[in-house]
Amino acid sequence: MPILVQKFGGTSVANAEKIKRAAQRAIRAQQQGNQVVVVASARGQQTDELIADAKEVNPNPPKREMDMLLSTGEQQTVSLLAMAVEGMGHKAVSFTGAQVRMMTDDSYTRARIKSIDGSVIKKKLNEGYIVFVAGFQGMDDEGNITTLGRGGSDTSAVALAAALGASFCEIYTDVDGIYTADPRIFKNAVKMKQISYDEILELASLGAGVMHSRSIEFGKKYNVTIHVRSSMNENEGTYITHEVPQMEGILVSGATVQKELTKITMNGVDNKPGISARIFEHLAADKVIVNDIIQTEISTEKANVSFTVSKSDMLTARETIEKIRGQVHCDTVFVREDIAEVSVVGVGMRSHYGVANIMFKALADLKINIEAITTSEIRISCLVDIKEAMKAYEAVCNAFELDKTVEKRKQPK
Amino acid sequence: MPILVQKFGGTSVANAEKIKRAAQRAIRAQQQGNQVVVVASARGQQTDELIADAKEVNPNPPKREMDMLLSTGEQQTVSLLAMAVEGMGHKAVSFTGAQVRMMTDDSYTRARIKSIDGSVIKKKLNEGYIVFVAGFQGMDDEGNITTLGRGGSDTSAVALAAALGASFCEIYTDVDGIYTADPRIFKNAVKMKQISYDEILELASLGAGVMHSRSIEFGKKYNVTIHVRSSMNENEGTYITHEVPQMEGILVSGATVQKELTKITMNGVDNKPGISARIFEHLAADKVIVNDIIQTEISTEKANVSFTVSKSDMLTARETIEKIRGQVHCDTVFVREDIAEVSVVGVGMRSHYGVANIMFKALADLKINIEAITTSEIRISCLVDIKEAMKAYEAVCNAFELDKTVEKRKQPK
Repeated sequence: MPILVQKFGGTSVANAEKIKRAAQRAIRAQQQGNQVVVVASARGQQTDELIADAKEVNPNPPKREMDMLLSTGEQQTVSLLAMAVEGMGHKAVSFTGAQVRMMTDDSYTRARIKSIDGSVIKKKLNEGYIVFVAGFQGMDDEGNITTLGRGGSDTSAVALAAALGASFCEIYTDVDGIYTADPRIFKNAVKMKQISYDEILELASLGAGVMHSRSIEFGKKYNVTIHVRSSMNENEGTYITHEVPQMEGILVSGATVQKELTKITMNGVDNKPGISARIFEHLAADKVIVNDIIQTEISTEKANVSFTVSKSDMLTARETIEKIRGQVHCDTVFVREDIAEVSVVGVGMRSHYGVANIMFKALADLKINIEAITTSEIRISCLVDIKEAMKAYEAVCNAFELDKTVEKRKQPK
Repeated sequence: MPILVQKFGGTSVANAEKIKRAAQRAIRAQQQGNQVVVVASARGQQTDELIADAKEVNPNPPKREMDMLLSTGEQQTVSLLAMAVEGMGHKAVSFTGAQVRMMTDDSYTRARIKSIDGSVIKKKLNEGYIVFVAGFQGMDDEGNITTLGRGGSDTSAVALAAALGASFCEIYTDVDGIYTADPRIFKNAVKMKQISYDEILELASLGAGVMHSRSIEFGKKYNVTIHVRSSMNENEGTYITHEVPQMEGILVSGATVQKELTKITMNGVDNKPGISARIFEHLAADKVIVNDIIQTEISTEKANVSFTVSKSDMLTARETIEKIRGQVHCDTVFVREDIAEVSVVGVGMRSHYGVANIMFKALADLKINIEAITTSEIRISCLVDIKEAMKAYEAVCNAFELDKTVEKRKQPK
């Protein structure tokens, strides 16, 4: 019998009614011939409430105790889910991360999974139980409770699917699936049927906020197809899979826009090995998160180094740069505030020419200046002035027909 | 260094301020030269809230899942306490029952402790940590979470003290200690300095509601002195200890009154072996809790059997009796509603004559009729009409000078 892992996020289990609905869904999946494992998050805003409780007794709570506290949220959800299933006349049992030996390192609040012992779960599945496992949590070698950080329940679910040899992991959430663009900005965005792990990883790192990168990496590594879908209806959502040939026919899968960025340019730094390393080492030490880096030689002796940071990190980044500019012999520092980054992602651009050109032309037609360009193998990003960001984003979405399903788009050359 | 176990009940950790106060108390105990282990209950009304959450998804939730759910309350408290201590600059660590291998049987919701492995706690104590342990919970041999039922945190605390070889267990609560009588009825009741395990066991079974019997039994068995005291001040509370010689000088330690009882008398049942067993077997099967039993022969062939039950169990008890009265050849059944039981408890009555007489005289002086009398080695109970119960209780309290500390009472003959 195939094993199916389902994951319900906090909004999908926020109250008794939603818990019962999730329970029904698990029962239905079992009745359809699956052995069902369900991973769940804490209910609604509970994690935030527990964090507030902690800050009240200690503004800077120790991380080990934080994990001890926060892990209770998921434990409550899975026991309630199991009760709901039992109340509907089916066999159910719930486990903590520790009970299924979800072993992690001891990096409290952001632990990484090392191994999972599937035997406890498999035994119960073979006895006909629906098995509920608290997401987001594990246990280190000494038996301390750990948590996996943001998006941790997604990671638990995909890792469990991998450990149990399940081919599918369903992620139930409050959206229908993954869209070609942000529907709050580009109203005509459409739901994707499928997308590759690599594309969703690029989109996630660009802040599309669909799923946490680590869960996608697990899926990619262990061949688990992830199905992102709504807990409110029966519609098919979006499948995240390995790249399949037909994906190549799609120039661009999705587009994102990141606002509130600042670009800092260091002009005329020494053009020699180790200089960039020194700059970004200091920024990391000061906990500045750097988005994009652009470096170009301007002579055999000198180079320009540009990077973008979020607006909230700008002051810290400037201070860091002031501290080290002497060491790298930087001539001038130029700060460009209030910019945005518009990006398109698609594996199709590996095999098709002119993708960048479509993007640049769309912006040029509207006389929008591109302040910088960065690319990866499957991504093109343009920095633009924040005042023109929305206009630029819509133009790019339209240029790549992101308002149409894949079948209805013009074929790329 | 001596080990001291402290236990904080739900009202003593109900909010951030109280959690910090409990943390300070643990730190102070450590500074006074103790190795400190703290057992805590769930915060305030949290257990009741979780039970309500459970009933919402399943009116009859499975007990294993109930324990999984309820155990989170104590886990939250101990992590918050540890955070508070760390915030005050001292070393602290929290553990679940499972993490300290508080092993129980698998009677979910009312499990019994089988063994505790003190090694994890001792290691941390020796490293200078204040160790917080979630009360009320344990783990069965298969790794399932169990809970110990009502009063479970008291039992955890005393059992831990026993396992760690601690001589003292402090129970912090919202009252000052244990009183000679119920201060809501007998206004002049005074706090006892000490009381024996046996006396408190009698008082607990009479509904005095101070501490759960099981925790007292642990204390008695493993020589742990239990100090019941207030979490709101520094006053000495009441010590529960083995019987010491000076206790014999006290005729009566405390008095209780139980209201809302019903007495059922079965007249003329067969006076032969096994008849009582059959009656009370059926009552137990129908989940009727029987308080007192009085049986007397009325001839070589016939006996009368009386017993008291709480008013809420009366209807069930009557139905049970109707079912079996033919089997035991009961002539008539007499039901006396609206009675109360006034009891006095004291190890002194073992070695002094006339204790019963003082009680009977106090009631006779007020012309209160005694409807039945039962005694144990250290207890005398009288059933009276409920309309006279408060008057009777006060008279008995005064007769035994329960408004005075032990030193100020007249010496018994």
